[in-house]
Amino acid sequence: MTTTPYERPLWNPQQPSPMPFHRYRPFDERVDVPVADRGWPAARLRQAPLWVPVDLRDGNQALAEPMDTPRKRRFFDLLVATGFKEIEVGYPSASRTDFDFVRHLATGGAVPDDVTPVVFTPARRDLIDRTFDAIAGLPRAVVHLYVATSPVWRDVVLGRGRDEVRRTVREAAEHMVRRADPAAYVRFQFSPETFNLTEPDFVLELCDELTELWDASPDRPVTHNLPATVEIATPNVYADQIEYMHRHLARRDSVVLSVHPHNDRGTGVACAELAVLAGAQRVEGCLFGNGERTGNVDLVTLTLNLYAQGVDPMVDLSDIDSVRATVEHCNRLPVHVRHPYAGDLVYTAFSGTHQDAISKGLARHARAAADAGVSDGEAPWAVPYLPIDPADVGRSYEAVIRVNSQSGKGGVAYLLRTHAGYDLPPRMRPDFARVVQQATDDSGREATGKELHELFRTTYLDDDGGDGALRLAAWSAQPTPSGGHRFVCTLETGDRTADHEGTGEDTLAAFVDALAGAGFAVDVLETSVHPADGGSVAYAACRVGGRTVWGAGEGRSAPAASVRAVLSAVNRAATR
Amino acid sequence: MTTTPYERPLWNPQQPSPMPFHRYRPFDERVDVPVADRGWPAARLRQAPLWVPVDLRDGNQALAEPMDTPRKRRFFDLLVATGFKEIEVGYPSASRTDFDFVRHLATGGAVPDDVTPVVFTPARRDLIDRTFDAIAGLPRAVVHLYVATSPVWRDVVLGRGRDEVRRTVREAAEHMVRRADPAAYVRFQFSPETFNLTEPDFVLELCDELTELWDASPDRPVTHNLPATVEIATPNVYADQIEYMHRHLARRDSVVLSVHPHNDRGTGVACAELAVLAGAQRVEGCLFGNGERTGNVDLVTLTLNLYAQGVDPMVDLSDIDSVRATVEHCNRLPVHVRHPYAGDLVYTAFSGTHQDAISKGLARHARAAADAGVSDGEAPWAVPYLPIDPADVGRSYEAVIRVNSQSGKGGVAYLLRTHAGYDLPPRMRPDFARVVQQATDDSGREATGKELHELFRTTYLDDDGGDGALRLAAWSAQPTPSGGHRFVCTLETGDRTADHEGTGEDTLAAFVDALAGAGFAVDVLETSVHPADGGSVAYAACRVGGRTVWGAGEGRSAPAASVRAVLSAVNRAATR
Repeated sequence: MTTTPYERPLWNPQQPSPMPFHRYRPFDERVDVPVADRGWPAARLRQAPLWVPVDLRDGNQALAEPMDTPRKRRFFDLLVATGFKEIEVGYPSASRTDFDFVRHLATGGAVPDDVTPVVFTPARRDLIDRTFDAIAGLPRAVVHLYVATSPVWRDVVLGRGRDEVRRTVREAAEHMVRRADPAAYVRFQFSPETFNLTEPDFVLELCDELTELWDASPDRPVTHNLPATVEIATPNVYADQIEYMHRHLARRDSVVLSVHPHNDRGTGVACAELAVLAGAQRVEGCLFGNGERTGNVDLVTLTLNLYAQGVDPMVDLSDIDSVRATVEHCNRLPVHVRHPYAGDLVYTAFSGTHQDAISKGLARHARAAADAGVSDGEAPWAVPYLPIDPADVGRSYEAVIRVNSQSGKGGVAYLLRTHAGYDLPPRMRPDFARVVQQATDDSGREATGKELHELFRTTYLDDDGGDGALRLAAWSAQPTPSGGHRFVCTLETGDRTADHEGTGEDTLAAFVDALAGAGFAVDVLETSVHPADGGSVAYAACRVGGRTVWGAGEGRSAPAASVRAVLSAVNRAATR
Repeated sequence: MTTTPYERPLWNPQQPSPMPFHRYRPFDERVDVPVADRGWPAARLRQAPLWVPVDLRDGNQALAEPMDTPRKRRFFDLLVATGFKEIEVGYPSASRTDFDFVRHLATGGAVPDDVTPVVFTPARRDLIDRTFDAIAGLPRAVVHLYVATSPVWRDVVLGRGRDEVRRTVREAAEHMVRRADPAAYVRFQFSPETFNLTEPDFVLELCDELTELWDASPDRPVTHNLPATVEIATPNVYADQIEYMHRHLARRDSVVLSVHPHNDRGTGVACAELAVLAGAQRVEGCLFGNGERTGNVDLVTLTLNLYAQGVDPMVDLSDIDSVRATVEHCNRLPVHVRHPYAGDLVYTAFSGTHQDAISKGLARHARAAADAGVSDGEAPWAVPYLPIDPADVGRSYEAVIRVNSQSGKGGVAYLLRTHAGYDLPPRMRPDFARVVQQATDDSGREATGKELHELFRTTYLDDDGGDGALRLAAWSAQPTPSGGHRFVCTLETGDRTADHEGTGEDTLAAFVDALAGAGFAVDVLETSVHPADGGSVAYAACRVGGRTVWGAGEGRSAPAASVRAVLSAVNRAATR
């Protein structure tokens, strides 16, 4: 055993905590972790394990208001529709509600042929009897026996030694064999609860004895489920514990090695993943991580983590919001805004650099898809800051970029384009972003797409420059016989109105010439124009009075929009 | 490289997903992970790294409503009070709000002598200038330069090759040296953003060049901060990446190796912990895991994970609810009910087995503390299902056990004792638990302590057995000269009233004798009594009409309470 490689930082010392940390012991003083010939750190996830949701049992027993039968049924149907094939449906001996629901499944035709229900029972004869009464009539089931096995539990809770626990398990297992309907495909599962705190040799002893007693075979394997009932160590330790079992369990081809991580240390997902690297084939968890205390490991995160690596997750989460809505309804608990893959904010960027990158990435993605002749939803995904395409789980791009004072030109431009249809030229974006930032700095709030649209309109389109502004009261443009254009207009400035005209190689140049004649010297540095609702939008950068100013304008035609854009720039120059 | 050890489960096949997982690539096709001589899987956490909260920068830029100066100041003061010594305070060139807050700190005397503020800047000369303008006057600061370094970012976002990025970084770093106030203790930090997707040799090249250019020494080390900007792989891969850097960075004793995990895969905590095992000395994160998308790694979980191992966390979270309240106020985001260590439900058990274990564990803990002559808060902690003592973070035991239809005798007895003062004898607990379960099965809801109290009262104390019940209208008891007791009473049954008397070795035996004379044959199997408000409470198990029935009673004295308890049992027997 080594220690942390580096000494406590001396360049910036921290203070000892006043909290009584000496009351706790490191995990390796509480349990003997066998150091196996570690293979898991070099392994890679290449396929999904068997996912087993335990929402209806472990999740349910952690709710202030447990689910009633309609809620349980709705949850069960969701799990089936999502593609889960083995589903823990209850703890029939724990309450009448649980018993009734299992009977509802057994008699109501709700269980498809390829789905196996699991029921949970303690190691007590009367409760085992009630469990088998509950599943009578089900053609397939897993009966899941548990007993707490670790020293603290044996001592404090059960008041039994290893031998007594072993006898309890054996007697319960024998009774299960007696009660199993030979006409049904009943399999057995064993959980040494608090596995991660139990002596490894004791777990092996219990599991191997059951493998033998239940006469496991590859066709009818036994499931040994090894829970991190309460997380006690960094996830690499759980992986070591699982790999040890994986390497030492008897009749390995007749054993389904299952894990059941909780999340007390916030490392449930990591424990499950490293355990699969270490040899686990089956993972129990709950949707969005419901469960006792900090919850069970979250199956949504686990499946989509595989998905994001190009591995078939074996479930369908293409409408994640409806899955979430059902789970929130049944559990009466919210999914957090930052919950991986499912939270309201997890595909959203407020910061300027992120928005700029996402905006560029989405544009690049659309081009790549077009080049490949496939839809955006089929092209390989590599957009910065978005681990998966939000559209794959049914999210729109609308919420991807939101704007506040932390935002920058990329996000502002993106939102203005997607919400209002204005596609600002790249060099104009910083100009409008400054306007937006001043507004959000002042308000301290987020600016919605609608507010950005309004701000854009008042900044560029409606800018009449106040009392001294230049107004184009009437105008017309015609081609000249020589191939140029002639621009005739009435210009108002304050209380002066006069007719002017000019010529140039196109309408805009002729307008600029007319402006010059009216005393307004303008150099048009850059223009761009694109179609908009029933007309065009134009953007223009102009040099006016020694400064570069941006303007924008709308019109029925491209030239009309361009003329308005230059006028907008002239007026903005006058007032800034 | 190996693959997952086991083939896809055949005993219960899952269906291929309809989702387009083929759009994604495994991480090892996206980045070259050097396989170092891996030491981290065998390492153990023995001390805290330097914790650096980035709530005021990275966390803040992910909020729909960024913090204003009063909120930032409140958050900063909280971080200082909690014991953090290096605190990222903003991104001064990003917005006026950020700049103003850093000026507020620089001029307002809010920064204690042993706290170092960090400010964040992109690699642009004008923004670096603004950053240094912001910190003018601070006696100590870390200026933190970042640039995105991975191929996708270089290509899509920056449009620059490796050499150009390198030149950008070098020029920025040189400008930072020029701008640093020689009179202040200014240190430098570099983040190759998207480190985990960057070629390892390129990161080394950039970092080593900066270590040299900034002339790092053990007294004035440079911080190289290696972000998992977006999580892309299982946490063991990040550990491999960090260990490679740890082993290869130049002037290692003059480099602070820092990590900055995000949580896209729900494995941010694991990444940080494994990275520390791999050689990281400094961890950036946010309180309760705020930050872009799924958030930054949660420093509260990280510090308390160490705490639960008996390692000094170097922070004070002894009033976690007030920390949480401030953070929720500043971020305007909730902490989830299942958030490790801090959620509303994380010290709560509803299920019967958990409650039973916790209840026994707490009793054992209190005895062990008493035996050792220390307070409950000082004795070593080993209570089932509770990784830490809730009292250590300022939580009461009140919420530990809550009762609904999933609950059992242990939880019911615990709640009844702690809320109402009734300490049921062990053999009576299943009797009352059945009553409670029927009520909660019927209601589908949680039963509060108050409701349990009410249910206990109506079940045992007020049980008048309906119309045919036995009532003790008046009674007295006196010692007899022979050393026994004599009991004289008026008993009412329905419309009959009669006087009775009996004798026995104590008051209760004399009452039972009187009952027998009145035609009620009762065997008292077990009684217990304890003091209660202004009197006593007694519990009695009686054999009546061939059945065993429990009763309870209150009275001014122990004998009076016992008489009531037996009467309660007799009446319950008559009506059941």
